[in-house]
Amino acid sequence: MEPAPEPQELPGQRGPQQHEMRERIVRAAEQRFRHYGYGKTTVSEIATDLSVSSAYIYKFFDSKIAICEAVCGNLLGGIDEALWADARTSRTAAERLRRTYHILLERSLAMFFDDRRLHDMVVTGLEQRWASISRHIEVMEEVARFLVQEGRASGEFERKTPLDEVAKAVASTFSPFCHPVLLEHGLDGDLAARADAVATIVLRGLSA
Amino acid sequence: MEPAPEPQELPGQRGPQQHEMRERIVRAAEQRFRHYGYGKTTVSEIATDLSVSSAYIYKFFDSKIAICEAVCGNLLGGIDEALWADARTSRTAAERLRRTYHILLERSLAMFFDDRRLHDMVVTGLEQRWASISRHIEVMEEVARFLVQEGRASGEFERKTPLDEVAKAVASTFSPFCHPVLLEHGLDGDLAARADAVATIVLRGLSA
Repeated sequence: MEPAPEPQELPGQRGPQQHEMRERIVRAAEQRFRHYGYGKTTVSEIATDLSVSSAYIYKFFDSKIAICEAVCGNLLGGIDEALWADARTSRTAAERLRRTYHILLERSLAMFFDDRRLHDMVVTGLEQRWASISRHIEVMEEVARFLVQEGRASGEFERKTPLDEVAKAVASTFSPFCHPVLLEHGLDGDLAARADAVATIVLRGLSA
Repeated sequence: MEPAPEPQELPGQRGPQQHEMRERIVRAAEQRFRHYGYGKTTVSEIATDLSVSSAYIYKFFDSKIAICEAVCGNLLGGIDEALWADARTSRTAAERLRRTYHILLERSLAMFFDDRRLHDMVVTGLEQRWASISRHIEVMEEVARFLVQEGRASGEFERKTPLDEVAKAVASTFSPFCHPVLLEHGLDGDLAARADAVATIVLRGLSA
């Protein structure tokens, strides 16, 4: 159940996967996207920031949108790391699952709403079904599965329902707290209280 | 807990609320939106379909977008009626709540994906925070609250958790099965099985 630590291969990427320049391009692009937005950033500006030619950047990415997807993958990967880091602590599985809702909510809000331009970038990615977003959805399901297994092993959770069914169902209940479009609709209300209420019902539903 | 049967007052509407012409305009507009899309339909074409002047239409709606919101409200209202009709049957509250997930899924899929142009119309409405959509979200929460109350009255569900908290939490778990953007991402998988798995956990969580 451990997540693979190697970097995800995303579409539109070229050349050596592990290369310091690839990371520098993604970091420079992220800064540009944060300050000027995706639409107003050009590959040539990213190249200038790094004192390289555009042609050199195209050795690593075949388009601006491929760079954008890598930025998106990096940011979502940060959320995934936070989820895994907490999922592996020594708290009870129930506590860890409840915390998962809150971590997901806090990190997603920070990612999507501290900077509206990144929100728009991810909504674009959702419409285009980016691989980085599918990967994030998979990780949330893996974290749910891991925690359900942990709770079954410790005797906290029931063991009759097929694990896969339960993991998918639990991950489905994360949606209002991690999806940029749903989060936006929920901003008027108390999302943290709602996340906690969902966690309470789900934990009762899982309990042995 | 009964829903108000009177028509919802939506923004951009003018003149008499109860008027046969208002309904005829909304029906004619819906046909146009289904066949040609929202963007390609003009108020003058809707007027021609009804053999009236555009000026006459503007006595009821102050813009094309106000007509569009009324169409959207009508369609979502149809889903709401189906939810209430089932919620008031004599089955157990648990059965009715499980059916709510499936009815919501089936009706939402039919509305959003039988005709892609309507999907786009509702996504536009979500972005613009239309009152008709907020109303639909409220109704889903009212149905959830009604069924939780029914299950508490019959002794099927626990009564300790505050009703409002539980109703909001249950309604949150409907999201992946009623939201056009989330439904679209789920189309690859078995949404009905997923809805059933969520219903199973939630019902366990609610049980006395």
